[in-house]
Amino acid sequence: MRVAFLGLGGMGMAMAGNIAKAGHEIVVWNRTRKAPQGFDAKVADSIAGAVGEAEAVATMLADDHAVESVVDGGLLDALPAGAVHVSMSTISIAAARRLTESHQARGRAYVAAPVFGRPDMAAVQKLWVVTAGPAAAVERVRPVLQAVGRGITEYGEEPWHANLVKLGNNMMLGAMLETFGELYALMRKAGVAPERFLEAANSLFQSPVYANYGGMAAERRHEPALFKATLGLKDMRLGLAAADEFGVPMPLMGLARDSLLQAIAHGGADKDWSVLALAAQKRAGLD
Amino acid sequence: MRVAFLGLGGMGMAMAGNIAKAGHEIVVWNRTRKAPQGFDAKVADSIAGAVGEAEAVATMLADDHAVESVVDGGLLDALPAGAVHVSMSTISIAAARRLTESHQARGRAYVAAPVFGRPDMAAVQKLWVVTAGPAAAVERVRPVLQAVGRGITEYGEEPWHANLVKLGNNMMLGAMLETFGELYALMRKAGVAPERFLEAANSLFQSPVYANYGGMAAERRHEPALFKATLGLKDMRLGLAAADEFGVPMPLMGLARDSLLQAIAHGGADKDWSVLALAAQKRAGLD
Amino acid sequence: MRVAFLGLGGMGMAMAGNIAKAGHEIVVWNRTRKAPQGFDAKVADSIAGAVGEAEAVATMLADDHAVESVVDGGLLDALPAGAVHVSMSTISIAAARRLTESHQARGRAYVAAPVFGRPDMAAVQKLWVVTAGPAAAVERVRPVLQAVGRGITEYGEEPWHANLVKLGNNMMLGAMLETFGELYALMRKAGVAPERFLEAANSLFQSPVYANYGGMAAERRHEPALFKATLGLKDMRLGLAAADEFGVPMPLMGLARDSLLQAIAHGGADKDWSVLALAAQKRAGLD
Amino acid sequence: MRVAFLGLGGMGMAMAGNIAKAGHEIVVWNRTRKAPQGFDAKVADSIAGAVGEAEAVATMLADDHAVESVVDGGLLDALPAGAVHVSMSTISIAAARRLTESHQARGRAYVAAPVFGRPDMAAVQKLWVVTAGPAAAVERVRPVLQAVGRGITEYGEEPWHANLVKLGNNMMLGAMLETFGELYALMRKAGVAPERFLEAANSLFQSPVYANYGGMAAERRHEPALFKATLGLKDMRLGLAAADEFGVPMPLMGLARDSLLQAIAHGGADKDWSVLALAAQKRAGLD
Repeated sequence: MRVAFLGLGGMGMAMAGNIAKAGHEIVVWNRTRKAPQGFDAKVADSIAGAVGEAEAVATMLADDHAVESVVDGGLLDALPAGAVHVSMSTISIAAARRLTESHQARGRAYVAAPVFGRPDMAAVQKLWVVTAGPAAAVERVRPVLQAVGRGITEYGEEPWHANLVKLGNNMMLGAMLETFGELYALMRKAGVAPERFLEAANSLFQSPVYANYGGMAAERRHEPALFKATLGLKDMRLGLAAADEFGVPMPLMGLARDSLLQAIAHGGADKDWSVLALAAQKRAGLD
Repeated sequence: MRVAFLGLGGMGMAMAGNIAKAGHEIVVWNRTRKAPQGFDAKVADSIAGAVGEAEAVATMLADDHAVESVVDGGLLDALPAGAVHVSMSTISIAAARRLTESHQARGRAYVAAPVFGRPDMAAVQKLWVVTAGPAAAVERVRPVLQAVGRGITEYGEEPWHANLVKLGNNMMLGAMLETFGELYALMRKAGVAPERFLEAANSLFQSPVYANYGGMAAERRHEPALFKATLGLKDMRLGLAAADEFGVPMPLMGLARDSLLQAIAHGGADKDWSVLALAAQKRAGLD
Repeated sequence: MRVAFLGLGGMGMAMAGNIAKAGHEIVVWNRTRKAPQGFDAKVADSIAGAVGEAEAVATMLADDHAVESVVDGGLLDALPAGAVHVSMSTISIAAARRLTESHQARGRAYVAAPVFGRPDMAAVQKLWVVTAGPAAAVERVRPVLQAVGRGITEYGEEPWHANLVKLGNNMMLGAMLETFGELYALMRKAGVAPERFLEAANSLFQSPVYANYGGMAAERRHEPALFKATLGLKDMRLGLAAADEFGVPMPLMGLARDSLLQAIAHGGADKDWSVLALAAQKRAGLD
Repeated sequence: MRVAFLGLGGMGMAMAGNIAKAGHEIVVWNRTRKAPQGFDAKVADSIAGAVGEAEAVATMLADDHAVESVVDGGLLDALPAGAVHVSMSTISIAAARRLTESHQARGRAYVAAPVFGRPDMAAVQKLWVVTAGPAAAVERVRPVLQAVGRGITEYGEEPWHANLVKLGNNMMLGAMLETFGELYALMRKAGVAPERFLEAANSLFQSPVYANYGGMAAERRHEPALFKATLGLKDMRLGLAAADEFGVPMPLMGLARDSLLQAIAHGGADKDWSVLALAAQKRAGLD
C-alpha cells in the first residue's frame, strides 16, 4: 500500500525501512530533511506532499507537541478521505483524545499504535505494537504494523487505550529499574557484586528485559543512551498524569519517578534512563 | 551418597523425592512423622537417628526458629565429622551467621543453599539453587543440589550471602506484585481489563514469572495459596531487616511490604501472597 | 483607599468585609451577583464597573482558570494606570508567572498575596498573608493586606514566590494529616484512643493547627467541610507540579497526595480534606 | 519520699537534680560512677545499694538492653516490697512488656513514664511525662513525675502504652523533619531561602517545635547534637517495629526512617538527628 512515514529519528528511520522492505510504496518526511538510510523511498518536501496520496500515514514523533504540530501543520488538511493516520509515538492520553476528536471532526480515521522497543530492536523488526482505534481502520493499517514488529496486541476502539497501555509498560520498566537500584545498593553494602546477584535474578525471572537493563545497571553502563533519562521522565510523567486523572494512587511509580528526578539532578539527564538505578545506591552512601 | 533430609513440608517432600530418585541413599525425618510420598526412604524416629550415619544432611524447614531448634535439638550433636549440613531453608542472614558460627565451633561444615521455586516446580526438579559456604563443603554436597534443581549459582565462602541473595529475589517478586497492583488499578479505572494489559506486559518482559504472577493477580486467583501471604511477609521482613543492618534505604520495598500488610489486614493472611496486588486496587476505590 | 474586591466566596466575603470595616471605599463584584453580608459596599454589575475607579483591585477566586478568566475578561483592560492588582487566590506558580507577564506587558502592577486560614479565621481577621511583587506596588496595597490579616510575610519581587510559599505550607498540612492518619492507625490497633494520643502530641507540638486538625481527624469530624478534599487535592497537585518543574523529588508529599486520592476514591470528595487521615487507617484494616 | 535514681546521662542528671530540689531524699547510681552536678545526693556503689531502701526507683537509661541489664543485674532482686520501679527510658514496647511481666512475677510494681524533651528542657523542668501502669503505683510515683516535668498525660494500666505514645511522638518529629527537608529542597531550587520559608511555616503552625527544628534544618546547624541521629534512628526503628507487630502500614514513617538512614550513610551518625532534613535536599542535587 501507499504509506507516508513522518518522523525519521532513530526509531522512525528503522521502522520506515522495514515498511519499505515489506514492499510498500513509501514516502518519507522529516522536519529537517533526511535521506532514507538503507532503503529506497521518495523524500517529500512538505507534510502535504508526503500525505496527499497516501492510504496510510504513520507518524513517529518526539512528543505531544510534535505530533499535534504536524497534524495541525498540514497532515489533517492533506489526509485523503479513506486514508488512516496511524500514530505510533508515545504521547499522553490527553493528546491521544484530542487527536481522535480532531480527526473525527474532519471525518478522518485515527489509529494509535505505539511500539515497545528501542532502535536496535526496531532495526531487526523486533518491536511489539499495541494498537487501538476503529476496527476497520486498524484492519487497513495492519500490514504497516506487521512490517515493523514481531507482534501486535489490540485494545479496542479507543485509541488512547493503546497509549495508556504503552505508558503503563514504561512505568513497569521504571519500577524494575528502581527495584534493581535498591537491591544493588543492598548487595554492594553486604559484599555481593551486582553482576553476581543479577545471575540469580535472571535465573528467577528469565526475562531478556531484566537481563538487559539489569546488566546495564550492574555495570553502570549508561552511555551511549539508548533511551535518554529525560525521555524516560517524560513517560513516567505522562503515566502518572493518567493515574492522577483517574484518581489512582501509584506510590511505587511515584518513587521511581523521584529516583529518576534524583538521577537527573545528579547529572544524568543525557544518559540512558537506566541511571535511575543509581539513585538508590547514592542514597545508601555509595558512589 | 548417604543423605539425611529433615523437613517434609510441600517443598521438602518433593526435594527429598528427587534426591532419592537421583540414586542417593536417603533417610528422612519430620517433626510430625510423615511417610515418603512417591519414593522409597528410611524414616527416622529422631533427628539423631536420621543424621548419625549421613554424609550430607539437608534441612528444609519453616523459619529461623525451626532450623535453630533442629540444629540445637540433636542435629549438631549427631552430625558426623566430615559430614556437611546443607541448609536449604529461607532464613534471616542473622540466623545464617549464628548457624555458621555454631557449626564452626564444633568443627562441622555448614553450607547455605536456599532454593527458588514453589512446590509444583520442586516436583519437576525445576528449582534454582543459590549456594555459599566453604568451597570443599559446597563441592561435597553438589550432587544433592544438582538432584533438586535445574541450576546452581554460587556466592563464595560466606553462607549468609546465599541467604541474602534469596531474600533479595523474594523482594524483587514483592516489588513486581506491587507494580502489577498499581497498574491494574489504573487500567481498571481507565477501562482496560488487567488480563489484556498483561498481554502487553508479557510481550515486553517475556518472563514466565511475570506471566504466572501477573495472571494470578489479573484473575484475582489467590486460593489455594502456593506461597502464603504470611510467608511472603516473613521474607519481606527478613530482607528489610538486612537492609536496615547495612543502612540501605529501600523505600520501594517498604511500600511493597506495606501493601502486603494491607492485604493481610483485609483478610488475606492465608491466601497466596499475590494478594499483595489487591492492595493498590483497594486504595484506588476498587473491590 | 478605593478598593475593588472580586470574588465573594466564603473567604472573599469575610475579607471584603474586613477591608470595608477598615475604612476603605469598597466596590464588590462576584460572577453570580451577591450582596455584601455584614458590611456596606457598592455592588458592581461588571468587572469593568468594579475595577474602573479603583486604586487597588483584590481578587479572591477559586483557581487558575477563574483568575485568568477575570483578568482576561475585563480586569486588565479596565485597570487604571497606577492601580495595583493584588491577587490573593491560591494558584499555580505557572499561572502566577503568566499573570505577572500579562500585567507587565500592559504596564500594570501585579502583586501576589495569598492567605493562610479558613473562612472562620478570615471572619475574625486572623489570616496570615504572604506577599511578593514590586516593592512599590506591595507598599501601595499594604493597607488592604493589613485589613484582612494578623500579619504579613514578604517574599521579594517575584509574585510567584509568594504562591510557592503558600503551596508549600499547604503541602506541610497535607504531610501533617498523613502523619496523624498513620499514628492514629497504629494507636487504634494497639488500644490507645486517638483523642488520648493527641493530648501527648499537643503537649509536644503546642500548635493550634495540630490541635485543630488532629482533633478533626481523631473524631472523624469531616463535615461540614471547612476546606474540601478536592480543593486540598488541587493544592497538593499544584505544589507537586512546582516540585516537578524544579526537579525536586518529594516522596513524602507524593504519599500524602496518594492518601488524599484514596480518601476521595472512597467517597470523601466533598468532605473536609482532613479525611486524608482516614486513608492510612483504612489501609490498616480499620473503618 | 526516698527515691533511687539510676542513670546519670545528660537527661538523667538534670532529672535527678529536679527530684532532689523538690525535697525528696535521693540516692543516685550510674554504671560509671558520677558525682551529682548541682544538687546533693548520696552516691551508691551498687544497684542494690541504691535501690534497697527506696520507695521509688527511677531508671533513665540508654536503651532496652541497658534497662534490662540493670533490672536483671540487681534492681529487681533489691526492690523492696511496696516500692515502685518507674522506668523513664525510651524503650521498645516488647521490652516494656517483658519488664512488666518480670516485675509482676516477683510481685513488684512497674510503671512506665517516658519523657518528652531534651537535656536543656530537662534542666529547667520543662519535660512532658507520659505514664501508664497500675493506678495505685502511678499514684505513688506522681510526686517524682511532677518534679521532673511541666505536665503528665496518663495512659491507663498497661505500661507499654506509654512507651508506644512516646515512640509515636518521636515518629511525628521524624515526619516533620522529612517535611522540612522536602520543602527546603523545593524552596532552595526555586530561589526562596529556607529561613524565609520557615517564617511562613511558623506563622501557620505557631509551634515551638517547628520553630526549633525548622530553624536547625534551615541553618544546617546539626552540631553539637542535642539528640544524635543514631538515637533518632533507634526510636524510628522501635516505632516501626510496633507498627509491624500490629500490622499497620506506615509508609510516610518508612520514608522518614529511610531519609535518616541516608543522612547517616552520608556521615551524619553523630550529628543531631535534624540532619534527616538534609537527605531530601541531597536527593534534589543540593549540597
